[in-house]
Amino acid sequence: MTLLYHTPLDAATQTTLGIAPPAPLAMADRVRFSELDALNHVNNAVYMSWFERLRVRYTQDWGVSRYPDGDNNPRIVIRSGTIHYKQEMRMDEDYVVTCGCTAFRTTSFSLAQQIWSGGTLRATLDCVLVLLQPDGTERYPIPPGVRTRFIKIDGAEPYD
Amino acid sequence: MTLLYHTPLDAATQTTLGIAPPAPLAMADRVRFSELDALNHVNNAVYMSWFERLRVRYTQDWGVSRYPDGDNNPRIVIRSGTIHYKQEMRMDEDYVVTCGCTAFRTTSFSLAQQIWSGGTLRATLDCVLVLLQPDGTERYPIPPGVRTRFIKIDGAEPYD
Amino acid sequence: MTLLYHTPLDAATQTTLGIAPPAPLAMADRVRFSELDALNHVNNAVYMSWFERLRVRYTQDWGVSRYPDGDNNPRIVIRSGTIHYKQEMRMDEDYVVTCGCTAFRTTSFSLAQQIWSGGTLRATLDCVLVLLQPDGTERYPIPPGVRTRFIKIDGAEPYD
Amino acid sequence: MTLLYHTPLDAATQTTLGIAPPAPLAMADRVRFSELDALNHVNNAVYMSWFERLRVRYTQDWGVSRYPDGDNNPRIVIRSGTIHYKQEMRMDEDYVVTCGCTAFRTTSFSLAQQIWSGGTLRATLDCVLVLLQPDGTERYPIPPGVRTRFIKIDGAEPYD
Repeated sequence: MTLLYHTPLDAATQTTLGIAPPAPLAMADRVRFSELDALNHVNNAVYMSWFERLRVRYTQDWGVSRYPDGDNNPRIVIRSGTIHYKQEMRMDEDYVVTCGCTAFRTTSFSLAQQIWSGGTLRATLDCVLVLLQPDGTERYPIPPGVRTRFIKIDGAEPYD
Repeated sequence: MTLLYHTPLDAATQTTLGIAPPAPLAMADRVRFSELDALNHVNNAVYMSWFERLRVRYTQDWGVSRYPDGDNNPRIVIRSGTIHYKQEMRMDEDYVVTCGCTAFRTTSFSLAQQIWSGGTLRATLDCVLVLLQPDGTERYPIPPGVRTRFIKIDGAEPYD
Repeated sequence: MTLLYHTPLDAATQTTLGIAPPAPLAMADRVRFSELDALNHVNNAVYMSWFERLRVRYTQDWGVSRYPDGDNNPRIVIRSGTIHYKQEMRMDEDYVVTCGCTAFRTTSFSLAQQIWSGGTLRATLDCVLVLLQPDGTERYPIPPGVRTRFIKIDGAEPYD
Repeated sequence: MTLLYHTPLDAATQTTLGIAPPAPLAMADRVRFSELDALNHVNNAVYMSWFERLRVRYTQDWGVSRYPDGDNNPRIVIRSGTIHYKQEMRMDEDYVVTCGCTAFRTTSFSLAQQIWSGGTLRATLDCVLVLLQPDGTERYPIPPGVRTRFIKIDGAEPYD
C-alpha cells in the first residue's frame, strides 16, 4: 500500500495501518535527518512539533481557527499537556499523528493525540487548549458549530 | 545585577531573581529569534528543548551520566512528562531553567523543572526518567552516590 | 494531480510541476507551522535543513554512503555552500527539493540543489562536499561506481 | 577570564579570545545538546540560525530596524549567502559570532560574519541583505545615519 502523506487518512486506512481505534484526524509523515539527536533517535522535543503541526491543521479543519486567513480569529493557546514516550523513533520511519477532542467546556477543550509507526504506538499527548480573544485579554467561547462537531465527529463530552 | 548565563546560579542569586524556592540546579539563557513562532511567542516545543538541555547538564553534574565522555554510561530515557504553560515568552527575554529531583526508585527518578523570567513562573515540567543499560535491553540501577545526592542535595524521596 | 511526497519524482513528473530542467533526484514535502518565523515566512535556516535532508537521501541512493546501515562508510562533510533566496515560502505550501552532481574530483564533489514551489524557483544551493575516512583524519576517494553514476546519470564533469 | 554571553564584546576582549581582527559586533554563546546531529557535531543548518540571530541584533543596534518595537520598519531580507565550514563544533563548546558591514549600495548591504571558538575560526558567512518597504513591494533606502555608521564603525565601502 502506498502511504499518503500530508493528507487526512480515513478510518479504513487507519485500521489497515494498525491504528486502533481510528482517530477523527490522522496524517502521515516521515522522520528527517535533522530530527535525530546525538543518540540517533528522534529528539523528544521534536514530538511536540509533530503534535502541534496536526493540532494547527485540526483547528483549521474543525473551524476553530481560520489561520492564516481571516480576521478576528481566536487565539488558541496550549495550557498544559502530558506526553508519554512509548518507543523511540528512527531515521526515515513513516509515522502517523492523530488528533481528536475528548471533552470541552465553554472556552477550553481537551485533545488526545497519538503517534503510530509500523502498527505500534510510539507516543501520546493529552493536552488542554484555551480560546482567547484576538488581543489575548479575555476568553473566547467555542463556536456552536465547533461544539457540534466535537460531539458528532469526535464523540467528545461537553462539561459546561 | 549582571545575569550570568550558562553557569549554575547559587541559591542566593536565584532568590534575588525571584525564584522561590531556589532549585538544586538553575541556569540562565536568553530567547533567540529562531525560537519564536509566527505569533511572535516562543514556540511551545522550544520549551522542551530548554528543559532537556538543563537535564543533560543535571545528569552530568549529578554523576548519572558522563556523556559525552566515558564508556558504559547508562542510557537516560524520558518516559513521560507533564508541562504547564503559565505565561508566554518573547524575543530577547532572559530566563532561568531549573531542575531538581523530587523522588526516585531503583532505576527511575522524577524531576521537577521550571522556567522563570522577570520574577514570574512561565512554565513547569514534571517528568519521569528511566536508566537503561547502554544496549537498551535492561534497566540500570541508580548508582549509590547519585541516590545520596538526590536525598542530600535535592531533598528527594526514595520509594524503593 | 496528486503530489507524491517523500518519493523520488521522475523527469516527466518534474516537468509537469514546472521544474526545468528535471534534476537527477527530486522529492516533495510541505511547509510546517514550526518552520515559520515571526514574519510568517519560512525561516532562512530551515532551507538548509531541507537541502541537507535530500543530500542525505542522495548520498544513500547514489551509493556514497550507506548511513545509517553499514560499516566503514566515509564521512561526508559539507565544506562550503552558496545559497540564493529567490522568493519566500509560506505556511502549507508544497515544495520540491532537487539535487544533482555538477562536477567532482578525487575526493570531493559539487552539488546543485534547488527548491521549487508552484512552478517557481524559490531558492538554490551550490555546495561542495568532501569524503573523509571514518575517523576523519584523511581523505576518502569517491568509489568508481559513484563516479560513473555522477557522469552517466547527473552529467557531471570529472576534474581530477 | 569569565566569558560574557549575550553581551557585545569589545575589541580588546575579542583580541584576548583570539579573534583577529576584532569585529564591529561580537557576542558569545554555548553549543546546546539539541543543536547536535546524529554524528555528534553541530548540524550545518544550526550555524545559519546562529548567524541570523546576531544579524537581528546587529540591525537593531545599528538602527536599520527597531524590531520588535516601532512601526514602519523596513523589511530586511537575506538575498544570498556563502558559508564556509572550517572546523566542526561539539557539545558545550563556547563560541563567538561576529558581524560587520563590508560594503553597501542604496538599498542593500553586505555583511561578513564569522564563528570563532577556542581561538580558531570555525565558519564564515558572507551575505547580502536588501531593505524593502514594510509591505514588501518596493525597495527601502538605507537611512543616512546607518550609512554613516557602516562607514565610520565598520569601515564599509559605499558603492552607489
